[in-house]
Amino acid sequence: MTSAGQPIHADILIHDAMVLTMDEERRFFENGSVAVSGDEILEVGPSEELKGKYRASRTIDGRNKILMPGLVNVHTHAPMTIYRGAADDLPLKEWLYDHIFPLEAVFTSKIENLKAGMRLAIAEMLLSGTTMFKDMYYFTDELASVVAETGMRATLSEGVFDNPTPSNAGGDKTLDYIDGAIQNWQHHPLVRQGVAAHAAYTVSPGLIVKAKELARRHDTMLSIHLSENQWEVDTIREMYGATPVKHLENLGVLDRQTLAVHCVILSDEDINSLAGSNTGVAHSPQCNMKLANGAAPVPELLKRGVHVGVGTDGVASNNDLDMFDEIRSMSLLHKLTSNSTTVISAKEAVEMATITGAKAIGYDDRIGSLEEGKKADMILINLGKPHSKPLYNVYSSLVYSLRGSDVEMVIVNGEVLVEQRQLQRMDLSAVYEDIERIAHEISAFQRRKQAR
Amino acid sequence: MTSAGQPIHADILIHDAMVLTMDEERRFFENGSVAVSGDEILEVGPSEELKGKYRASRTIDGRNKILMPGLVNVHTHAPMTIYRGAADDLPLKEWLYDHIFPLEAVFTSKIENLKAGMRLAIAEMLLSGTTMFKDMYYFTDELASVVAETGMRATLSEGVFDNPTPSNAGGDKTLDYIDGAIQNWQHHPLVRQGVAAHAAYTVSPGLIVKAKELARRHDTMLSIHLSENQWEVDTIREMYGATPVKHLENLGVLDRQTLAVHCVILSDEDINSLAGSNTGVAHSPQCNMKLANGAAPVPELLKRGVHVGVGTDGVASNNDLDMFDEIRSMSLLHKLTSNSTTVISAKEAVEMATITGAKAIGYDDRIGSLEEGKKADMILINLGKPHSKPLYNVYSSLVYSLRGSDVEMVIVNGEVLVEQRQLQRMDLSAVYEDIERIAHEISAFQRRKQAR
Repeated sequence: MTSAGQPIHADILIHDAMVLTMDEERRFFENGSVAVSGDEILEVGPSEELKGKYRASRTIDGRNKILMPGLVNVHTHAPMTIYRGAADDLPLKEWLYDHIFPLEAVFTSKIENLKAGMRLAIAEMLLSGTTMFKDMYYFTDELASVVAETGMRATLSEGVFDNPTPSNAGGDKTLDYIDGAIQNWQHHPLVRQGVAAHAAYTVSPGLIVKAKELARRHDTMLSIHLSENQWEVDTIREMYGATPVKHLENLGVLDRQTLAVHCVILSDEDINSLAGSNTGVAHSPQCNMKLANGAAPVPELLKRGVHVGVGTDGVASNNDLDMFDEIRSMSLLHKLTSNSTTVISAKEAVEMATITGAKAIGYDDRIGSLEEGKKADMILINLGKPHSKPLYNVYSSLVYSLRGSDVEMVIVNGEVLVEQRQLQRMDLSAVYEDIERIAHEISAFQRRKQAR
Repeated sequence: MTSAGQPIHADILIHDAMVLTMDEERRFFENGSVAVSGDEILEVGPSEELKGKYRASRTIDGRNKILMPGLVNVHTHAPMTIYRGAADDLPLKEWLYDHIFPLEAVFTSKIENLKAGMRLAIAEMLLSGTTMFKDMYYFTDELASVVAETGMRATLSEGVFDNPTPSNAGGDKTLDYIDGAIQNWQHHPLVRQGVAAHAAYTVSPGLIVKAKELARRHDTMLSIHLSENQWEVDTIREMYGATPVKHLENLGVLDRQTLAVHCVILSDEDINSLAGSNTGVAHSPQCNMKLANGAAPVPELLKRGVHVGVGTDGVASNNDLDMFDEIRSMSLLHKLTSNSTTVISAKEAVEMATITGAKAIGYDDRIGSLEEGKKADMILINLGKPHSKPLYNVYSSLVYSLRGSDVEMVIVNGEVLVEQRQLQRMDLSAVYEDIERIAHEISAFQRRKQAR
């Protein structure tokens, strides 16, 4: 209690931590505190101030720990965890047509499989410090309740194609489904629905425009895989006489409410189009490397002011959902391909995984930094392991040395979801039982296919 | 006990594990056992056979775990952990001349600092599954006893330069020191001494030849940084009219008892020279990326039968000693730069981190695989976390999903050094105290330097 008066009530006060705010000034408190009330951050500041000012229902000792915003995974296909490691190191076409598509045809159509995959994905993400993810897959209306159960924050975007998908008849029918899903979830505190057009080579121009109109009508985002590799660029050029980016610009769908996923192969003009329209970009370095697609021109995009967030992509091509791992790979990748040791500094990498990612998906009014009035999404990172010592620079440690497994506590929307590396809401053994059963079926399917 | 007779005594029997042997046939037992007596492996086989055949002082339940050879880190500068994160994201020359060299001039010369750094390094390596490392640094005679204390396996190679180093007067004086060190340690079960010539641009031809002669005399290896970047190739060409590899070939020092570290920039002829002479290669992908040096032609080297092992390099340029992280980066890197999804398969990556690495450093008669008569260096990996599920392919899981932090138990030379992720021999709190003190001094030094 200070002499200034009565202490203010807080639900949670984390004190004596190294607090990395990622706010506009990138304030860092060597010994800082964060006070939380309900789902919101009340105040961020030096411990000596906040400890006297607040009386909290729960105080958490942050000594020898980093407290920072939860990580924002801007692009994944979460339920695909059921396929983790089912097919690797194969030529791209063989991987897709002989493995992933046949598996999806059988197993993605069963919603129970996707629910289990989604639960496994959320467990993995929470345990490696991710507190928000933007997903693109199927059955998003039904899967949203699974996400809601876990207490995780997410935007789920149902993918529309010209053709039918495991969940929908395709085209307008899918858009109707998405329309309903958006309305069903628009007031939920954690889970929202977006619109996804799979890619310019699987969705006709008219349908892309309609998908964007639907997103605009509901003030939500359109996501689309864009310029992922040279094949796509060549294909779209042949079909529409333009690069994929230019094609979307011609359709009038590039704006700050569009998230362009991948953007590996970009011309200077493409970069102009993305920067000029404020289109957000999702960068998935590990997937781009593993599928030998190339290195997106991220340093140039950042220089031009494009909001580039980081996404793990689905585990069929990664094979994990660990954002720490992803930003380390990202920083190393761009140093190599730019032939410069200064490119994508550790600080930039942390920005991309937090506040810049939040901007890319239009969520920075609520998350991405620790600031008064923002949602209380934050992670506490243990610094007590050999690989985390010594610590000279907090950004360098986060990107080059620390691990997802160092995340000790995770708070989403003011609720402690992980404590001492244990999930507080989820029953992992039930999830594992489901996953074992599904993996068993998938293995049997693969053996039968091979035997043919 | 089988009807065949009395059970055989074993000190340790790990049973019911997924056993990845990495032997010549790459045998994998879905439900396997390994029996250990003293420092050696007695037998590897199906659990149903071994459980009846042996009566063990200690049985270890391997259910839901992978048992495999400990990882072999073929190149690092272990004591440099004291500089972890002290200088990152800087232009190469500024990094070396304004940061690393001034730091080393002051702090590397104090042997107590290096002892603390070595202990921290060994703790980190053991906790991420490494059971053998080949080190290149200073004061190797004195540091060997620190390694021996921990129970870790290592070869330490004192670096010789023309000029004095923090530990030695340089040239012949250093070679005399190494000669003594080799003799002091030649009968130790775990710790050996090698010879290191720093690089062709810091060590004159005559001294390189003498260093190799010394190594030959004691039947140990010569390590040398070789062809790390374009600058080195240009410099050596100017000095000696040959590529660095050709220069060493001309000196007659390339053979199976030489370890060439990095080999990033290689001509076809260089590859011929390395393959023809059976020279081992140490590959450090993360360091090569972080310092923007390039991607070594590893797929080509492997195709030509060169034994390429994996090294983390020192943490000043990585910034960790985690071999899991290193092989994941390696596999992704070469897929990208080779423009092929099939390059450096998960299986090849695991081979490089175990048996091929052991071959590269001339240690495959003792370690690198789980086989009767080899030393009992092995790790048990927990598969109970969300990111490790499901498991379709053990190699894929190891490279693309599993983490150093999943290593639960580590056995070196038959002794359990890590159990339930706790170090059994080392007192971490004492190590941390030393490290904190040294880091404090280093920070103060950096502040003073900046203020000037």
